[in-house]
Amino acid sequence: MSKPSLKVIKIGGNIIDHPEKLEQFLGQLALVKEPFVLVHGGGKIATEMSKSMGIESILIEGRRVTDEATLKIVTMVYAGWINKNIVAKLQANGVDAIGLSGPDGQIVLSKKRNPNPIDYGWVGDIIEVDGQKLQDLLTLGFRPIIAPITANKEGNLLNTNADTMAQSIAIGLSPYYQVELSYCFEKAGVLLDAENNASVIPQINASSFEALKQEGIVHAGMIPKLENALKAINLGVSSVRIMHADDLLKPNSGTKISNE
Amino acid sequence: MSKPSLKVIKIGGNIIDHPEKLEQFLGQLALVKEPFVLVHGGGKIATEMSKSMGIESILIEGRRVTDEATLKIVTMVYAGWINKNIVAKLQANGVDAIGLSGPDGQIVLSKKRNPNPIDYGWVGDIIEVDGQKLQDLLTLGFRPIIAPITANKEGNLLNTNADTMAQSIAIGLSPYYQVELSYCFEKAGVLLDAENNASVIPQINASSFEALKQEGIVHAGMIPKLENALKAINLGVSSVRIMHADDLLKPNSGTKISNE
Repeated sequence: MSKPSLKVIKIGGNIIDHPEKLEQFLGQLALVKEPFVLVHGGGKIATEMSKSMGIESILIEGRRVTDEATLKIVTMVYAGWINKNIVAKLQANGVDAIGLSGPDGQIVLSKKRNPNPIDYGWVGDIIEVDGQKLQDLLTLGFRPIIAPITANKEGNLLNTNADTMAQSIAIGLSPYYQVELSYCFEKAGVLLDAENNASVIPQINASSFEALKQEGIVHAGMIPKLENALKAINLGVSSVRIMHADDLLKPNSGTKISNE
Repeated sequence: MSKPSLKVIKIGGNIIDHPEKLEQFLGQLALVKEPFVLVHGGGKIATEMSKSMGIESILIEGRRVTDEATLKIVTMVYAGWINKNIVAKLQANGVDAIGLSGPDGQIVLSKKRNPNPIDYGWVGDIIEVDGQKLQDLLTLGFRPIIAPITANKEGNLLNTNADTMAQSIAIGLSPYYQVELSYCFEKAGVLLDAENNASVIPQINASSFEALKQEGIVHAGMIPKLENALKAINLGVSSVRIMHADDLLKPNSGTKISNE
């Protein structure tokens, strides 16, 4: 018997930062027929909140260094404000959304990242996803909306990369579903020319990724995103795409990540 | 066939404000054998957070007036920081906790309170609890940990009284369970002498409540708490107690609310 279909959708911070873009995206999400899991990032709200409280945000290679004050802020903003607003808006659109973080039902268990060579502070690296428990919730009809906050076995909360969270959840659900993973953000896909949304690379595999890196076409934040995507496709996820949030309902949009 | 037992436990802000008291309480909670639902208040953290951001907290008759900035803060603090910390700590103690707010699975639906005679701002009055959905989660083995944030049908988040939230949830679960509702706080029960923890009134019913009110023995925050308790016992909740958080595992502790 073939496995049922499931979408795992990651929505990027750039969409979350703009209420009208987020609303448009959630309106489209409410039209998705298949069961889905949404993983959301945090955007600039946490940074702004930190500023208003006089806390400096430090980024190393695009990743936030999470001291105790920052952990509190990202937990409040991601798992509190953003998560509950998305859930309430989806419920108003008729979607039976349920907002979760890693410790809820221990769906995602992590450990504190090794402080060597760089001490990122209270940052979690995922060690396990409980796909069975997510399946239980999906079977009841719930649509999990997941914030990128996890906890370790000792009960310490940890800030976690949302792209990696989406990838791990997609892999963890692959024994139960044909999983289609979509990274939705503010661009049309992986672009040959960063300024031109018409220059979408239709397909990327491991060897073309290496070539694109060496040519300097993909860099910065796109490299870990593509590494995440390639790992997902290699570990049982049926389909992975990187695409514009507006294209959620359009088939075959954006860049397809392939293991061929 | 008799209904299975369930505890609905409200833990007050005064316990949440003290990490060592909260930890002790959660350690006891992990020893509860029956399925349970925990409803937590917020304590002073939201007020302190508001101060550090230069936002004034306004209380009318002990209830917070919730402007837009305050709604954001209470959602972040209650549904984010406090809720996820409790969940992570319970998970570390072997409890399969799942942190929820009203909009999650629309377990608690509310409407914005009428601004007349007093405009409390973004405050929700509960209109419905989805006991069936909470039962579904309990049946899967989850222990719901509920923050006092709800949403209306339009998807607006609303600040909600935690005592009322506990009462409504206890009533909403009564068709499915023999519900024992416990209001846990920093005193030994309803006291004859507010300064003497040995002066616990063992039992209160509607008529003795009226007498206690007229004699001025119960006042301020205790009046709505007792009204909540009496409503619960009149609407199908099997047992209601007001007691010290330390006494969670002791049978027959605190003040019993009775409809006899």
